[in-house]
Amino acid sequence: MTRFLTPLATTLPATVPFTGPETMERQQGHPFRARLGANESLFGPSPRAIAAMTAAVSEVWMYADPESHDLKAALARHHGVTPGHLVLGGGIDGLLGLLCRLTLEPGTPVVTSLGAYPTFNFHVRGFGGTLHRVPYRGDHEDPQALLDAARQTGARLIYLANPDNPMGSHHPAAVIEDMVANLPDHSLLVLDEAYADLAPEGSIPNIPPDHPQVIRLRTFSKGYGMAGARVGYAITEPGLAQAFDKVRDHFGMGRVAQIGALAALQDQDWLAKVQQRVVTARARVTAIAAASGLRALPSATNFVTVDCGQSGDHARAILRETVARGVFIRMPGVAPLDRCIRISLGDDAALDVLEEVLPQAVAAAG
Amino acid sequence: MTRFLTPLATTLPATVPFTGPETMERQQGHPFRARLGANESLFGPSPRAIAAMTAAVSEVWMYADPESHDLKAALARHHGVTPGHLVLGGGIDGLLGLLCRLTLEPGTPVVTSLGAYPTFNFHVRGFGGTLHRVPYRGDHEDPQALLDAARQTGARLIYLANPDNPMGSHHPAAVIEDMVANLPDHSLLVLDEAYADLAPEGSIPNIPPDHPQVIRLRTFSKGYGMAGARVGYAITEPGLAQAFDKVRDHFGMGRVAQIGALAALQDQDWLAKVQQRVVTARARVTAIAAASGLRALPSATNFVTVDCGQSGDHARAILRETVARGVFIRMPGVAPLDRCIRISLGDDAALDVLEEVLPQAVAAAG
Repeated sequence: MTRFLTPLATTLPATVPFTGPETMERQQGHPFRARLGANESLFGPSPRAIAAMTAAVSEVWMYADPESHDLKAALARHHGVTPGHLVLGGGIDGLLGLLCRLTLEPGTPVVTSLGAYPTFNFHVRGFGGTLHRVPYRGDHEDPQALLDAARQTGARLIYLANPDNPMGSHHPAAVIEDMVANLPDHSLLVLDEAYADLAPEGSIPNIPPDHPQVIRLRTFSKGYGMAGARVGYAITEPGLAQAFDKVRDHFGMGRVAQIGALAALQDQDWLAKVQQRVVTARARVTAIAAASGLRALPSATNFVTVDCGQSGDHARAILRETVARGVFIRMPGVAPLDRCIRISLGDDAALDVLEEVLPQAVAAAG
Repeated sequence: MTRFLTPLATTLPATVPFTGPETMERQQGHPFRARLGANESLFGPSPRAIAAMTAAVSEVWMYADPESHDLKAALARHHGVTPGHLVLGGGIDGLLGLLCRLTLEPGTPVVTSLGAYPTFNFHVRGFGGTLHRVPYRGDHEDPQALLDAARQTGARLIYLANPDNPMGSHHPAAVIEDMVANLPDHSLLVLDEAYADLAPEGSIPNIPPDHPQVIRLRTFSKGYGMAGARVGYAITEPGLAQAFDKVRDHFGMGRVAQIGALAALQDQDWLAKVQQRVVTARARVTAIAAASGLRALPSATNFVTVDCGQSGDHARAILRETVARGVFIRMPGVAPLDRCIRISLGDDAALDVLEEVLPQAVAAAG
């Protein structure tokens, strides 16, 4: 241990939010047959985005535009906001880190759900914030419980993902709008909408962009199929949006990524095709699970969470046997969500492998 | 102003370290004829890196390996260290931010040189550190003055770039080695070696990789010509290297960037060609400056700093007239360094434009 760390940094654990599939492949000595664990989009990015990125590769000697002017302008038009309402960053993960940095001091209370996105928790702890967690209500995050806990703890941040990861559930827009209307004055709602592009109609709330207590987070990693590019964005009132300029790495955006995201946004037809494929793939994964006696939960995302119907140990055994047979999947980390496994949607080839492997894994798990 | 910011975030200024050339182009309404201001490499990345990145574009739906295993292994071999001595990050800028986060609390003293890399200062202030700055000694950062100031202030970090930006000067290895031998116990030397790949022989110090008081920073942005990819790395003792895992955005590296950096590293012949071109271009920029009566300083980098021989106002006038004629250059921000302008090296086409424009700019500046 080096002697130069702050007291906070000294006490932080060395845990990471997720082990990468490449690490698992190195450990097991062979590559996965199907990569269905990280909620990546096997349907890939728009061919127009691929073409734009390919053309941009030879320009990679240049830094990206630190203001992401063109991408911001296009996003502003897309969402009906001004560029001043937008923050571009290195995926939602990167933006969550900056948001925690801007808002949390050691001991600042934060509310989230028990089993919700671990990377948010990683960043909260990383800046010394104190996490308070409320249980899911069935397979949904519980807005009322989050609001109650926020009032009780004086939380500065309330995290909610809609649609939800890891359960794939969603709340109708009205539920989120009602939550926004009832926020305590001291709380900012961190509304993670990573899966919004794949959500059913009627689940994306209407929130005035100047609302002083909401920051919405979006990404090109899921519906747009560009997880490896690291482009996410926040929509929030201009005062908070500008604050990111105080701390962000202004030249941190990749040039190829920035150019690719703009092209991806401009190809909404491709996104519509992905949305159709996602619907089809959800049905197929549901059927594959049912054939093994497992119940898929309704999904508003690009993954299907499958209730294995018994204990966490049982689900972990199915996960282990599935992974051992070359299919990378993940599962929720805590009870009672850990009775489930989480399967990202894939193309036909990947789901063929899943169809072959899952029954074997379930049988082997006993 | 939002009410959710920490006291530190509230007090931070909204300044940015640098205005991007794209912003300037938008303001002036036309693109630059030559882009010689950001120390990018107009010689570009290795064709093998371009090929690898082009092939990787269609895989961008996948996150990058969060451990950067293959790139780390190759870098470890290249530098004769273990992977445990390495930290990969989003350029040196990103790594400087994480380092400041790990080591600084409000009021922690930090020492740097007056006029040295502004982005380091941005991150120090961003975490509340207190900057103490010592003057350059002529055109060089002054190791003895930095050590003295570190002792006087109890500095936790001492920043020094070798070769230096913005002056392009360098210290021989022995000077840096002597500085390392005389570090006060409470100080970590932040040795920014962004330009090491272009430095003259004998200027890269031999520092044991397990030295507990040094972190060296390297990048693929300069010699390797991949500024827009955002890949930098640190070499330091494993205790400090591991600490980055406590706070870094584990999935923050771009996949195309990660793959491209590995290919770039494996093409040392290309780097050797770039080094030759840099030497040739230095001589040409020196001659172009001399033809306008300006004295180029010796350069150990991919830019040439040109002493305009008079006041900061005079240099600023030359810069303004040069930029107005379509050549993007920058200059040091503070006296007495601001008697200079800084011209990044370019290919023949870019230097042809410089050769045409600089005499006009000098004449117009009077």
